[in-house]
Order: sequence, then C-alpha cells, then structure tokens
Amino acid sequence: MERTIEWDNGVVRMIDQRKLPNEYEIAEFTDHEGVARAIQEMYIRGAPAIGAAAGFGLALAAQNSPATTREALLNDLNQAAGVLREARPTAVNLFWALDRVLKRAHDESLLTPDDVRQAVLAEAQRIADEDVQINRRLGQHGAALIPPGATVLHHCNTGSLATVDYGTALGIIRAAHEQGKGIRVLVDETRPRLQGARLTTWELKRLGIPQTLIADNAAGYFLQSGQVDAVIVGADRVARNGDVANKIGTYKLAVLARENNVPFYVAAPTSTIDMSVASGADIPIEERDPEEVTWIGQEHIAPNGVPVANPAFDITPHRYITAIITERGVVSQPFEEGFTKISETEQGYPG
Amino acid sequence: MERTIEWDNGVVRMIDQRKLPNEYEIAEFTDHEGVARAIQEMYIRGAPAIGAAAGFGLALAAQNSPATTREALLNDLNQAAGVLREARPTAVNLFWALDRVLKRAHDESLLTPDDVRQAVLAEAQRIADEDVQINRRLGQHGAALIPPGATVLHHCNTGSLATVDYGTALGIIRAAHEQGKGIRVLVDETRPRLQGARLTTWELKRLGIPQTLIADNAAGYFLQSGQVDAVIVGADRVARNGDVANKIGTYKLAVLARENNVPFYVAAPTSTIDMSVASGADIPIEERDPEEVTWIGQEHIAPNGVPVANPAFDITPHRYITAIITERGVVSQPFEEGFTKISETEQGYPG
Repeated sequence: MERTIEWDNGVVRMIDQRKLPNEYEIAEFTDHEGVARAIQEMYIRGAPAIGAAAGFGLALAAQNSPATTREALLNDLNQAAGVLREARPTAVNLFWALDRVLKRAHDESLLTPDDVRQAVLAEAQRIADEDVQINRRLGQHGAALIPPGATVLHHCNTGSLATVDYGTALGIIRAAHEQGKGIRVLVDETRPRLQGARLTTWELKRLGIPQTLIADNAAGYFLQSGQVDAVIVGADRVARNGDVANKIGTYKLAVLARENNVPFYVAAPTSTIDMSVASGADIPIEERDPEEVTWIGQEHIAPNGVPVANPAFDITPHRYITAIITERGVVSQPFEEGFTKISETEQGYPG
Repeated sequence: MERTIEWDNGVVRMIDQRKLPNEYEIAEFTDHEGVARAIQEMYIRGAPAIGAAAGFGLALAAQNSPATTREALLNDLNQAAGVLREARPTAVNLFWALDRVLKRAHDESLLTPDDVRQAVLAEAQRIADEDVQINRRLGQHGAALIPPGATVLHHCNTGSLATVDYGTALGIIRAAHEQGKGIRVLVDETRPRLQGARLTTWELKRLGIPQTLIADNAAGYFLQSGQVDAVIVGADRVARNGDVANKIGTYKLAVLARENNVPFYVAAPTSTIDMSVASGADIPIEERDPEEVTWIGQEHIAPNGVPVANPAFDITPHRYITAIITERGVVSQPFEEGFTKISETEQGYPG
C-alpha cells in the first residue's frame, strides 16, 4: 500500500500496525463498527491517521445504510458517528474529522440519499488527501528549524504510519533529511506499546535516515550529555493555550529538554489544535489495558495480578514548548495569539 | 533460600534473577570465573549484592587454589580479583569488596595458606552478614523521612534481590511498611531489563506492600499530577560531591521530582560512596548489549539491524538530591562535608 489507510472500492484498507515490524499485513473493513474497533485496538493510531479512519468509517456507514430518504440516512450517519466517537478519547482529530464529514453530509444542497453518500465519501477522501499535503507543508516549516548535522530526539511514532502519509514530527525529520542536512535520529522506544522501537525504526530504515534506538530511560542521559540538538514530538490534541496532550512520556522529555537548554518542538497540523479547550487540564487522558504494560507479545514480564496504571497520554504545559509547528507556519509563545493569527491565513482555520 | 546469595559448604548459591518472576531457580558456582560471569550476565545485580558475590568469588578462588605457600596463594587471589574486577565497571561495591577481602588476605599475621583461606572466607561472609545489618539500619533512618500514607515512586530493584537481604531503597519502604505507615509504591518497570516489573513487584507482593506498576514513561505523569510524595532510588556509586550513578532513568526522575517539588532520596550504604572520585563525571558508565533493548525474552521488538545505544546507568548531579540515606544516618547538602562527618562515627568509614 502507498498509504497507511486507503478507500478501495467500498472497502477501507489499512496496515495492521500491531504486527509491525515482524509482519506487514493489510486489514480490510467493510463497516464503521469494524473501523471503530480498529481505532480502539490500535490497528491504526496517530492523531491524523485516526481522523482519516473516522472519515472513511462514516463513508462506510453511508454506503451500507439502507435509507431511502435523506433524513433516514443522516440519522444513520449520526448514529455511526456516535459509535466512532467512542473509539478513543484523547486525539481530537477523531472528533474533528467526524464533525467535518457530518457537516458536509448535512449540507442542504444535497437532495437525495445518493447525493449525501457521494458527498460523504468525497469529504472523507479529501481529509485523507489533504493530510498528505498538510504534512509536507508542515515538514518544510519545521525543517527550517533543524540545523545541519543535528541529532534529533523523537518520541512515539509520528511518521507515515501515524498519518495518511509522510508524517508530522517525522515529516520534519524527513524533510530535513531530503534537504541533505545530514541529521540523525535518537528513537525513544516508547513504552508501553513500543511505537518507536516497532514503527519509527521501521520507517526510518526504509527512508535511509540514520538512527539509534534507545530505551526511554536513556533519553535524559543523551540530553544531559549534550548529544541532542532538538526534541521533536507530535500531538494528539493541543489546547488553546498551547498545552499539548501527546503520548505518555512526552512531558518528561519537555522538562529534560528545558533543563538542558535543548529546543522542544511540537509538530501539530491545525486539525489537532482544539480551540474549544482552554488548557491541558480539560483534555481527557485515556487509561488503557494493564496488559499493555505486563505483556510484551507472548512474554509476561510481571507477576500475575500486580496492579497497573497505564495512562496513554500526558500533558506538556505550554511553558516548556519552544514552538508548535503547523502546516501554516511556526507558532511561538504566546500560543493562543499565534493560533488566532495563523487561522486568518489561507482558507481559514480548519478547527 | 533465605538470602539472595549464600556460601554453602564450598559452593556459592544465588537466585538466578534473570528467570524471575516466572521461575525461581538457584544457580550454583564453584569457581570465581563462574561468579564473574554471573555478575556480568546479571544472574545477580544490585551494587551490594555484587559486592557480596565478589567476596565469595575470592573465597572460591582461595579454596580452589593448589598453592602450598602463602605467597603463591596471594598471587592466585590477586589474579582472581583481576578477573572479578572486570565483570562490571560502574558499581563501586565490586571493587570495595575485592579490596577489603584482599587486604584481609594480605594481613601478615596469617602465616599459612590455610590461615589465608579461612580468613578470606570469613571476611567474605562478614561482608554478606554486615550487609543485612547495614540495610536494616539504613531502612530505619530512611523510614523516618516517609510520611504516613505516602505514595513513594521507586526505580529499578533495590530490595532483597539487590542486596544480601532486606534492601536499600526498598529497605526504607519495607521499614516504613513495618512501622505501619500505610504507604504505597509506584513501581517503575525500569527498561531495558525490567528489574522493576520483574523483581520489585515480586518482592513487594511477597511482603504484602501495596503497589502499582507503571511504564517508566508514566512517572512524569504521576509526579506532575501530585500523586507522588517521595522518590526513592538506590545507588551504584556515589562520588565525593554527592553525584550519584544509578540505573539508567534515575536522572530523569530527579529532574522531574525537583520540577514538581517532590523530595528525591538516594539510599546508599557507605560501601557505595567512593571518596576517591570527585564527581559523577569520573564514574565510568557501562554500555551493555543492544539485545537488552531489541529483545524481550523471545519477542523481537525492533527491525533487524537497527543501531542501539544502551547505557546502563546515568549520573544524577548532587544538586537534584534532597538527601542521601546511609546506615550511619541521613546526609544532606553539602554532601562531602556530610560524608566526612558520618565517617567519624562508630567504627570509622568503611570505604
């Protein structure tokens, strides 16, 4: 597959990321319940990829609905959106994509159910296509901040696999590499699900970008010893004030980066910025299955019955963030002002 | 076995910690090369336990030596100490124990080879026995710092398994628990070797101390959200100025603790304090096998051939440390002054 997720003749196809890097398998889904499950069980993850999946989920619901009136179809779509909305709580792109497709479906110029079906699919496809363009633009803005020969520390996976294609934080790294900057990536393995060890290494290897994998615990060692020139991470949701919800462990990197005078950059397409949320305190943090911590594949790494806490995300307060990089440019503090400013450029703020 | 390591009729027996928590197996060693390998391959780990193992390793060398003169035996012992000395570079207890036993062996009042053999075994046994007493005293000093009902964050394993018995940082937790303080432990899993998930949970479960296991990445989340009252860690080597070498990831906890106004305590028997080393910059950091990061048991978690960096320890600068807890009392900043002061109490500084 060229992309992480695709619409193919009435079927949603996606790379089953749970199997990488050992197996490359394509999973197919023919209804929105399946797509919701794929998001929940992390066949697909990464805020932009989740957004694209949600859009295509609605396209499947539209296709499968037996409705013969516009109203009945809109009702089915609203119900399907409700199911998809429950899949995961933290990444805002899920809600953003659902709202965007639903809004298009409710457009009063669409007169027949088939008009709505076509429009829903077209809007979902547009979200996916735009994502690739957005990431490439974001990558260009971000690459300008990366000095030649830099070593960049990266957390989780924010590459093609976390998006429809190209990537956000990893898109910046990719753009810097394509510009011949000769950069190197320190890859946080990113427990508990090991998206860094499993996915980011796999992508960087395919792209031929020099990398070194480390245990998350070693990040501080490399920051402290002056071996890191920048930390770049993605975002699952950015609050109005610039607080960032991202993969658990991000906050720690931000604190360590500031302590060692290393710039800390967040790559966030504007679809990830949630202006309805005042600060990180208002972003729900998903608590996931304890077995993500106690089992690694077939290996049971803790005694039976040990209690586990497994928050999947943390909040990085905006004061630790050097800049937030969007497809519309680089935003510095104060972030709310910056977000408002970029929303006035081009075709308006997508949020 | 009652202890992590024991001398049993000419054989050194130790719990094979690589197999826990899934299997409880006792490994037996009959020569010092075997003990050196056991330290290197981490059948046994934890600075005080490594010290005890090194002492018993020399006792095996003394027992096995065919020397018929005192001089020949001392020569064999010096050679055996050289082999043991190479096993691991960071924990100072290895060198401390070897030097202590060798010094005893060289005592001129020992006239025959058998006198030396007996003295070497007795000194090794004394190191092991003292360790248990030292940890109990250290535990009492430390427990006084833990408020009732506290949640304590702990990294790596510093319990019975890291010592001959009782533990250092975990000994403090144990003492506080025995005093009925009603404390709870947040257990860092401690990648890459997962000593927290595998060993600390196993010990806390046996002791009936309430615990919650977390991925290392989640430590910041719990510190930030005010759910941690103290961080307590062990030490592999403490420099004269109070800089601490300890399991990779310790530095990160110290920075996060200070950032969130949570006290950061280091439990260090005086045998771990190396007054010959001015600061952490002079402590060698062991780089271990990349496969510790890329394999977890039978699970290969990264693509073939990905480069890995695997420093096993990091340095926590003394300015982040609230107090260093020894068997002779609690030392606060400035640490060098404090170390000198406690060395003047009781039978003198053991270092």
